[in-house]
Amino acid sequence: MTSSPARGTDAVLEQVVRERELVDRVVASFAECQDPRLRVVMQSLVRHLHAFIRDVRLTEEEWAAGVEFLKAAGHITDDNRHEFILLSDVLGASMQTIAVNNQAVGDATEATVVGPFLTGNAPEIALGGDISGGATGMACWVEGSVRDVDGNPIPGVRLDVWEADQDGYYDVQYRDGRIAGRAHLYTDGDGNYRFWALKPTPYPIPHDGPVGRLLQAAGRSPMRTAHLHFMATAAGYRRLVTHVFVEGDPQLIAGDAVFGVKDSLIKAFVDQEAQTPAPDGRDLGGQPWTRTRFDIVLSPEERE
Amino acid sequence: MTSSPARGTDAVLEQVVRERELVDRVVASFAECQDPRLRVVMQSLVRHLHAFIRDVRLTEEEWAAGVEFLKAAGHITDDNRHEFILLSDVLGASMQTIAVNNQAVGDATEATVVGPFLTGNAPEIALGGDISGGATGMACWVEGSVRDVDGNPIPGVRLDVWEADQDGYYDVQYRDGRIAGRAHLYTDGDGNYRFWALKPTPYPIPHDGPVGRLLQAAGRSPMRTAHLHFMATAAGYRRLVTHVFVEGDPQLIAGDAVFGVKDSLIKAFVDQEAQTPAPDGRDLGGQPWTRTRFDIVLSPEERE
Repeated sequence: MTSSPARGTDAVLEQVVRERELVDRVVASFAECQDPRLRVVMQSLVRHLHAFIRDVRLTEEEWAAGVEFLKAAGHITDDNRHEFILLSDVLGASMQTIAVNNQAVGDATEATVVGPFLTGNAPEIALGGDISGGATGMACWVEGSVRDVDGNPIPGVRLDVWEADQDGYYDVQYRDGRIAGRAHLYTDGDGNYRFWALKPTPYPIPHDGPVGRLLQAAGRSPMRTAHLHFMATAAGYRRLVTHVFVEGDPQLIAGDAVFGVKDSLIKAFVDQEAQTPAPDGRDLGGQPWTRTRFDIVLSPEERE
Repeated sequence: MTSSPARGTDAVLEQVVRERELVDRVVASFAECQDPRLRVVMQSLVRHLHAFIRDVRLTEEEWAAGVEFLKAAGHITDDNRHEFILLSDVLGASMQTIAVNNQAVGDATEATVVGPFLTGNAPEIALGGDISGGATGMACWVEGSVRDVDGNPIPGVRLDVWEADQDGYYDVQYRDGRIAGRAHLYTDGDGNYRFWALKPTPYPIPHDGPVGRLLQAAGRSPMRTAHLHFMATAAGYRRLVTHVFVEGDPQLIAGDAVFGVKDSLIKAFVDQEAQTPAPDGRDLGGQPWTRTRFDIVLSPEERE
């Protein structure tokens, strides 16, 4: 708080009282929520929102810029573009929500953001099948195991996997109805899995809207580090949504726009020269390819 | 944080470290802001946003409900309806912004929210003129003085005044281009003013959108207490945006949806029986009328 010679101690005290009483009044207004959880969430939101305004002494012009930012974010949002998810992502709020809902348990694989490109229509493939569906990029053999925190293999785990093509676009971003770069499959009786995908490449989050302008003003890059999405679902286990990142990706140093990277999720992708035989004997047309291994550990389902 | 018997101290500690490191990483991402004020605001916003998520242990479903709420607020917002201002209002954020920008100074009149209905096209009226412009309601004589904190009268102060009609609607809400219930005038050489207006009545904020649904879920009323808006502008003084509230309005007890009420702004409106002569001899058609006095004290302009 700034003060001027014209203002005495009484005025400064009066100011503090006014600000605190306002917080108390707003908190009290949510006391009658029928849903006790809504009460807790809203009262905490109010306290933190007011603390932010008081801490930075938010000006009226900044307040106006804030509500106009939200209006612009709302207007660019449609069924294919959700600017508020992007905003949550670049403020780390999505990743913090993931963090508090995926408590560390033993060596369980860490979770990361789901992102906006998971769909419900990915085809099933057999073990060893190909998720690319015509999407372009370097062929990539992915294999690994799924185990519990005691090291026991888990058979029949559903794995949803999805990724962008080499141009950095997911199938849904083409808006021509294609389904590519996504599939689901199941672990075998020994808890193992294997499939063909594409070597992930870095790409920018949509940055032609308010969130992109915020990143630019902040001197931040809109690039995401290269990654392949995984979602592992099995009865009795906490559902895991995560990525595997590519060791050596320069964007790992520059930083991930959405703070999704965990060191434990960075894996070696071992590039193979042209003509190197594929693990399953597949004909790769004489092209170079790559391979990685991603072993997954699932937490037990949480008991509330 | 909840813990279960399966989780040891190490896992709990690891969890705390993960959450704190994430906050630090996001804060650090704004370190390169070219605008130092943007850096301060964004870093504080990040800290408070993450503290909120961690404090309530926000679930992924609640996060999803939050971003969908913002999307819906964006989609109902247009040139005449700004749902994010309403949201800021009902969370007390607008009023807290007013509070931090209008430090208490001596007996200076307290500020309150500007609201969404101030326009740039209000006609000028002479002292003693009528702001109603055809809007309906009980005639109300408003008079008072404008002084500085040392008690000296301030001549030539511009007063913008605006209000809803007896049905609770501002002129712009009719969308037929009418200009009514708003005007501006200037204090005389002794710093006094007087005009005819309408006795204010309580009305709801727009509550057919996401903000209305939030209020309903919280068991809160969308009603604003009855008020007449004032904006006082004079060179060398801090611009004052405030309301005068109506003593005895039952909504004062029920509570103002946007937390705009200050006790110091509640004034007696003294209702007059039909046929009581008007202060300026105006013919009121034999109808009852009312009168109030609102003396204003302006703070000196702030020196930055």
